[in-house]
Amino acid sequence: MSEPFFQPVSGFELPRFAGVPTFMRLPYVLPDHARYGDVDVGVIGVPWDSGTTNRPGPRHGPRQLRDASTMIRAQHAVSGVRPFEALNCADLGDVGPNPADIADSMERITNFYKGVVDAGITPLTAGGDHLTSLPVLRAVAKDGPLGMVHFDSHTDLFHSYFNGQMYTHGTPFRRAVEEGLLDPKRVVQIGLRGSMYDSEDRDFARAEGIRLILIEEFFDRGVADVMAEAREIVGEKPTYVSYDIDFVDPTFAPGTGTPEVGGPNSYQALQVCRELEGVNIVGADMVEVSPPFDASGNTAFLGVSIMFEILCVIAASRAA
Amino acid sequence: MSEPFFQPVSGFELPRFAGVPTFMRLPYVLPDHARYGDVDVGVIGVPWDSGTTNRPGPRHGPRQLRDASTMIRAQHAVSGVRPFEALNCADLGDVGPNPADIADSMERITNFYKGVVDAGITPLTAGGDHLTSLPVLRAVAKDGPLGMVHFDSHTDLFHSYFNGQMYTHGTPFRRAVEEGLLDPKRVVQIGLRGSMYDSEDRDFARAEGIRLILIEEFFDRGVADVMAEAREIVGEKPTYVSYDIDFVDPTFAPGTGTPEVGGPNSYQALQVCRELEGVNIVGADMVEVSPPFDASGNTAFLGVSIMFEILCVIAASRAA
Amino acid sequence: MSEPFFQPVSGFELPRFAGVPTFMRLPYVLPDHARYGDVDVGVIGVPWDSGTTNRPGPRHGPRQLRDASTMIRAQHAVSGVRPFEALNCADLGDVGPNPADIADSMERITNFYKGVVDAGITPLTAGGDHLTSLPVLRAVAKDGPLGMVHFDSHTDLFHSYFNGQMYTHGTPFRRAVEEGLLDPKRVVQIGLRGSMYDSEDRDFARAEGIRLILIEEFFDRGVADVMAEAREIVGEKPTYVSYDIDFVDPTFAPGTGTPEVGGPNSYQALQVCRELEGVNIVGADMVEVSPPFDASGNTAFLGVSIMFEILCVIAASRAA
Amino acid sequence: MSEPFFQPVSGFELPRFAGVPTFMRLPYVLPDHARYGDVDVGVIGVPWDSGTTNRPGPRHGPRQLRDASTMIRAQHAVSGVRPFEALNCADLGDVGPNPADIADSMERITNFYKGVVDAGITPLTAGGDHLTSLPVLRAVAKDGPLGMVHFDSHTDLFHSYFNGQMYTHGTPFRRAVEEGLLDPKRVVQIGLRGSMYDSEDRDFARAEGIRLILIEEFFDRGVADVMAEAREIVGEKPTYVSYDIDFVDPTFAPGTGTPEVGGPNSYQALQVCRELEGVNIVGADMVEVSPPFDASGNTAFLGVSIMFEILCVIAASRAA
Amino acid sequence: MSEPFFQPVSGFELPRFAGVPTFMRLPYVLPDHARYGDVDVGVIGVPWDSGTTNRPGPRHGPRQLRDASTMIRAQHAVSGVRPFEALNCADLGDVGPNPADIADSMERITNFYKGVVDAGITPLTAGGDHLTSLPVLRAVAKDGPLGMVHFDSHTDLFHSYFNGQMYTHGTPFRRAVEEGLLDPKRVVQIGLRGSMYDSEDRDFARAEGIRLILIEEFFDRGVADVMAEAREIVGEKPTYVSYDIDFVDPTFAPGTGTPEVGGPNSYQALQVCRELEGVNIVGADMVEVSPPFDASGNTAFLGVSIMFEILCVIAASRAA
Amino acid sequence: MSEPFFQPVSGFELPRFAGVPTFMRLPYVLPDHARYGDVDVGVIGVPWDSGTTNRPGPRHGPRQLRDASTMIRAQHAVSGVRPFEALNCADLGDVGPNPADIADSMERITNFYKGVVDAGITPLTAGGDHLTSLPVLRAVAKDGPLGMVHFDSHTDLFHSYFNGQMYTHGTPFRRAVEEGLLDPKRVVQIGLRGSMYDSEDRDFARAEGIRLILIEEFFDRGVADVMAEAREIVGEKPTYVSYDIDFVDPTFAPGTGTPEVGGPNSYQALQVCRELEGVNIVGADMVEVSPPFDASGNTAFLGVSIMFEILCVIAASRAA
Repeated sequence: MSEPFFQPVSGFELPRFAGVPTFMRLPYVLPDHARYGDVDVGVIGVPWDSGTTNRPGPRHGPRQLRDASTMIRAQHAVSGVRPFEALNCADLGDVGPNPADIADSMERITNFYKGVVDAGITPLTAGGDHLTSLPVLRAVAKDGPLGMVHFDSHTDLFHSYFNGQMYTHGTPFRRAVEEGLLDPKRVVQIGLRGSMYDSEDRDFARAEGIRLILIEEFFDRGVADVMAEAREIVGEKPTYVSYDIDFVDPTFAPGTGTPEVGGPNSYQALQVCRELEGVNIVGADMVEVSPPFDASGNTAFLGVSIMFEILCVIAASRAA
Repeated sequence: MSEPFFQPVSGFELPRFAGVPTFMRLPYVLPDHARYGDVDVGVIGVPWDSGTTNRPGPRHGPRQLRDASTMIRAQHAVSGVRPFEALNCADLGDVGPNPADIADSMERITNFYKGVVDAGITPLTAGGDHLTSLPVLRAVAKDGPLGMVHFDSHTDLFHSYFNGQMYTHGTPFRRAVEEGLLDPKRVVQIGLRGSMYDSEDRDFARAEGIRLILIEEFFDRGVADVMAEAREIVGEKPTYVSYDIDFVDPTFAPGTGTPEVGGPNSYQALQVCRELEGVNIVGADMVEVSPPFDASGNTAFLGVSIMFEILCVIAASRAA
Repeated sequence: MSEPFFQPVSGFELPRFAGVPTFMRLPYVLPDHARYGDVDVGVIGVPWDSGTTNRPGPRHGPRQLRDASTMIRAQHAVSGVRPFEALNCADLGDVGPNPADIADSMERITNFYKGVVDAGITPLTAGGDHLTSLPVLRAVAKDGPLGMVHFDSHTDLFHSYFNGQMYTHGTPFRRAVEEGLLDPKRVVQIGLRGSMYDSEDRDFARAEGIRLILIEEFFDRGVADVMAEAREIVGEKPTYVSYDIDFVDPTFAPGTGTPEVGGPNSYQALQVCRELEGVNIVGADMVEVSPPFDASGNTAFLGVSIMFEILCVIAASRAA
Repeated sequence: MSEPFFQPVSGFELPRFAGVPTFMRLPYVLPDHARYGDVDVGVIGVPWDSGTTNRPGPRHGPRQLRDASTMIRAQHAVSGVRPFEALNCADLGDVGPNPADIADSMERITNFYKGVVDAGITPLTAGGDHLTSLPVLRAVAKDGPLGMVHFDSHTDLFHSYFNGQMYTHGTPFRRAVEEGLLDPKRVVQIGLRGSMYDSEDRDFARAEGIRLILIEEFFDRGVADVMAEAREIVGEKPTYVSYDIDFVDPTFAPGTGTPEVGGPNSYQALQVCRELEGVNIVGADMVEVSPPFDASGNTAFLGVSIMFEILCVIAASRAA
Repeated sequence: MSEPFFQPVSGFELPRFAGVPTFMRLPYVLPDHARYGDVDVGVIGVPWDSGTTNRPGPRHGPRQLRDASTMIRAQHAVSGVRPFEALNCADLGDVGPNPADIADSMERITNFYKGVVDAGITPLTAGGDHLTSLPVLRAVAKDGPLGMVHFDSHTDLFHSYFNGQMYTHGTPFRRAVEEGLLDPKRVVQIGLRGSMYDSEDRDFARAEGIRLILIEEFFDRGVADVMAEAREIVGEKPTYVSYDIDFVDPTFAPGTGTPEVGGPNSYQALQVCRELEGVNIVGADMVEVSPPFDASGNTAFLGVSIMFEILCVIAASRAA
Repeated sequence: MSEPFFQPVSGFELPRFAGVPTFMRLPYVLPDHARYGDVDVGVIGVPWDSGTTNRPGPRHGPRQLRDASTMIRAQHAVSGVRPFEALNCADLGDVGPNPADIADSMERITNFYKGVVDAGITPLTAGGDHLTSLPVLRAVAKDGPLGMVHFDSHTDLFHSYFNGQMYTHGTPFRRAVEEGLLDPKRVVQIGLRGSMYDSEDRDFARAEGIRLILIEEFFDRGVADVMAEAREIVGEKPTYVSYDIDFVDPTFAPGTGTPEVGGPNSYQALQVCRELEGVNIVGADMVEVSPPFDASGNTAFLGVSIMFEILCVIAASRAA
């Protein structure tokens, strides 16, 4: 069991509205902290949205996610898992981006995550827009291409935007496949929907062997069946989980920049995570939470609830 | 049939946005009113949130519920019940709380409800936070412990908070069982979910025989099956219905203080009420509507729509 | 294939937040424009809400719908239809109402639509409250009564309001049947719910042969089954599609004046449109979007997503 | 001193958030109430906005003004006046409009106010858009043309709108002068600003002798000097006070339909009322409060604070 | 000059939206921290609103104030003071209240502040409602009664509320005078306004010698003149500064529970602080910031801007 | 007088809420339009915020400014100027930026404005963040350095941010001086305030001869006196006017990314423009309007009201 140092503050003792909000009320352990080396899972903020092609705001995501996360308690309601006892969890702070330089920011992010990975910490990221996943993968996929379970309403597999712009939140996984960070045969994208520019992204996916699951198939087959296939696709090898909040219907998660109506509800948004049990998760992210478009913080609360589900799955998988 | 005095104002004659908003545009009948003794069902506001452990606001609930209730019309869309013709209904006003003294407030509430019960009026309460149910039960359960159908995402069965605080919105039903106001064998709690502090509340429930239905079971079995069991649990004896708006998914009901994502939608929120037909309802409440977290009033509109469903069920049950 | 003139601006070239927002970034073709005669489907705004009996605001609908529509892209995600290539589509501007005179406004609207119909253009209307449909039908039904698929939580079949007021957003289809614009035997209303004044509207419907599908039947049977019946009811003859945004649950579409809880979600809101393929659509409208009650614009985004679905169905039906 | 019956409920006893909100927590005295004849000043709601040419919403004004008015206490902070002791004040309810018929609504309003005036009650109106003032004046000016102190950013003196529409919220005082309800020589309009269509309204004013005080003159001379002139203009004869909330800068009062930036602040908004002491006020109104554009209710709170100032001035003037 | 440890993070290096938000991006130094004894000025949160008689919410104040405070930079724009270099400043965390027990909470607060004062730290408090000042004063006034400069629209000098409730946010300074924590002859209250229950509070003030400056006098004399008198009243002896955000006009600070219109603007809100230079400040607070009533955080930004002004004045006064 | 083609649509004929919103309802004249060469003043949108160091959003500015601008009428309330008759004005559309590449975007902007300037059109820009001014000045200052009247709470004269980033919204005028686009001796910055990083920007200003007017001086001297000096500084030679909306107090203009409390009100915000009469204005901009932080659009309405003032001054100056 985890040490007292790594236990979150209980709402029974300090009301949830009190205190400086770290992720899930965990200890704040920056890289130079004495206990950094003891961390199993590190929650990291990447307040960055320079890759956003439409409505900006995810740079404010980590702070609002931390604020909402003080509502998270210690135990899972169904599995009974107590992740903070099973694993040493900590808030590792934010990677400071350069809002005016994409290349510099990506380098800062990759460097920070290399340190995390080298310390044996599994990173759970709070973005940031979806371009965040690329510099993170550059650090996490250090031993070869990863599988990926990707929840999203978009493929993010486009070649480029605006006259040849290669690095936007619509292109990270095209780059990741090109750079050998992902094994396309072990990638599944779930929840796709919304009107399309054209078929260029899907053509790429099909050519590479990426499995695309449109929202219609998701609703027709149901969570359990779809996720069983997802587990089969990624298999037992190291896998990344990337969760774009716009996977969820925008009514449940309005705080995002490129919403697409007609998506899953919040119950389904949680259930898909539970079905990840057994997957060899080496990193995960929650991206595209954009506070300016949901001042209530409800989107962020759903976001951290999903992060808690993923954390419980990691804890359960490792305990098994 | 009910007299003209007890008929609500029609939106065909006076637009819904006009007039002083009493509950469902019913007559306002304070205890000293000449027609008080003729009331069958009294709608009562309890603007009080001193038991709230996190985000406050339910003290503003009754006013916003009254405002939203002007949208309610005279006839049920499916059953065709016209409750205001079947029963003499009235707005009995608010119980004035003492915002700075929990014990004094509980005493005021219990005293007010004793008068209501003594007059033969069935109380339909608009809270207030969930601690409201305790002083109400102290009046309503005057002839012995009641059964209860309880819709909520939380059990509200905790022993105490914050260094031994026994009276909060997380403890009312623990107290009610201890005080003999509820018969735990005839209590069912539906919709439980969200991360947990620990299992202390559920352990108590199981030891006492309270039936807990988690949201997963609710979704797996469906409304009809779950509610059939609920009716069986409470049987034919007097039963209280307590409806915490946080039973509903917070996307449908954001105006509440302790939301838990992944809950029922508004259709299910209504359907569970319809399945209460035949239950011997001696009192009911709608609690935890917190206007500061939903200035739009949409949460309150759902709240009063649920209250209307309960009222129609009471009317139908008594007509049968 | 449609000419370059009729192609919308791509978000890959001009970001979606840039430019003056016409409907779906289509060319703006007023009646005196040289290309007016080449238009196949014209999107028209009717910024008018003088028929509103409760909360006003749909006069602001067309502008917010245009703004939100810049998020719509060129291709349907499932059918692959590219409507702007299949048909010459254009934004035909707004019909200027007289906010202080219902009769004058209706005449202006009918006159404008007569021009549209005479030019061989199929009108896709962005209202406006539901009274809008009446003056539109007066132009569109020039060759005899139409069938209608009507999505709504209300029948809008009332005789009158407020001391004999015959023209409100609660009466348009009563008038349309009386005026011979609709063939009641070929009319189906889907999604009905909410508390009722009385049964006067439903009695009329049943006497005339209008098929009423309550929300309970809708949920019990499912989209495919209900819509198969709808297609059968309207048959192959000319049919109008009227889509009141309050058909959708108000959580998904809060920006409307007379919401009724317990409705379909956004996925179902889209799916019902897809099931219109094959119907002989001679006009369609999206009404009751009320921006003051949803400053976020999310309701409007759902509204234009539905309009895009209808447009794709028109394109697919004509291609078949 | 006023009787106990006419005293508002104190916030020291019943918290301000409790109870059904009548205006200033006064007794609710409809025309058939036994105490109607004892009322000195009656606060009346006119929930009506059919004259609105731009953003609608004032139909919701009276309800929000009532809600906000529960914050008003019993005594003026500077003058020490206790108006509810000096005068019998009551909430006389709302005049029910016909939202779909301007002429019918005006007739209903005039009839209601004739009853008020005949009962010797001074009406203090909560609108409603500015067209409200016209049917009110038709009742109040029964003994000849009145003087008027008019606070507004617009003259509301236009001849007509939209192809000859004579009754809009931009035309009431043109009509009132034409109908002999106002003596233009005894009318002063204060706070005028904002871009103009043309000079037609000002030309009329100057021709008739209405005194126009632009916002620049108001700021240059100051409240005391301007109001001294206003008192001189209206003199000792019966005078109406019409207060359009858009007189105030829209930052202080965003909840209105036709805002004009660069206006007075809330302190000045109150001070101008205090300078009305001694004026022979036979009626007053607060119009154009539009709740949909300020869900917070802050505009309404300023509105009722102004109404309280006017009430105190009436009380002080009559005591003198 | 202050050590590097005590320097806030610069926005030039880490963007303001990044990182966990401590007050003004200062180090987080809880009582058991090694550097606690080196702190000169400690910023402390008191997330508590159990004394609130109307709209609740200040329990959420400290978190929103911390969030907004990341906008504060290192140097004063006019005086050039760099407070974080002049004094060792730190965020000392929150005092954890018991939301359901006023007496217990007050004891917790007083105990925490006794530790602060014993460590030689000057406390700068972020409330909490105004009852917060009482338990703080019980610690800070350990060597005898203090003078006080009190900015507020209310006196907070009432005897009691609701049937004898002695501890509410309307009574703290009555208690403080009774308990000998304040020397009434050295107390000045500035900004008083709003309708009144009666004169009981002012009568007490005048009997005790407390100087009351109504908003009219404030505006007539101007900031410099009023504040010169304030400095004279408190003299050179130890003085407390209590700043209720409702001193400011609610348009500039809507996020508060008992607003009163007609107050100072934000420029004046800052200027009054600057005029405190030279005062012997032994503690200060910013109270009644209520985030649920201003989700934008703008009220909190004004609140921390005022706190920064006070901090600069403390630094300048001590440097002199 | 201007031709009918260049006249805006009147709200007397088409209600303001109707129609596609071009700037001030002017004709939409893209560079390939036949009347492009006849334009005197062109209103141009630059939807771009890649230089923003804190809260993003000005990329959405032009659209919201256009929407709000439909409230602008034809004549100035004080001067009586009718700018659309005096000058041929048109909406020239948006310059399409590349949201992911600062250098590419600046080049696109400069190229677009070179075309504008070459056509003899005076550009009135709707930004965009303040970096927008730099690429605009590169086109407008083609004949040598310009003078500038700059309204802002910040100098925007910093050397760099984030590890050497030279192009952000905090550096445009440092670059403009370095590039010889501005003559620092003819530059005045008005309204400076807010906490500072350090004095580096002001040191540069003073070394170069730029006149800095802090907000304290502005309030002490008043609008007329300050602006007289401003006119003297820029003299008769070509001058640019740059208006950052954060010059205005954030209560009046909350929709901006880096607000500073304690600024001018909306009346003063307009008055400073009127005092520009006689200045030789060769270009002007309104920047930093950020819609996500003010969904109401009120900030944008103030922004376009200011743009109208500038337009009237240009018209009056040229007529003189």
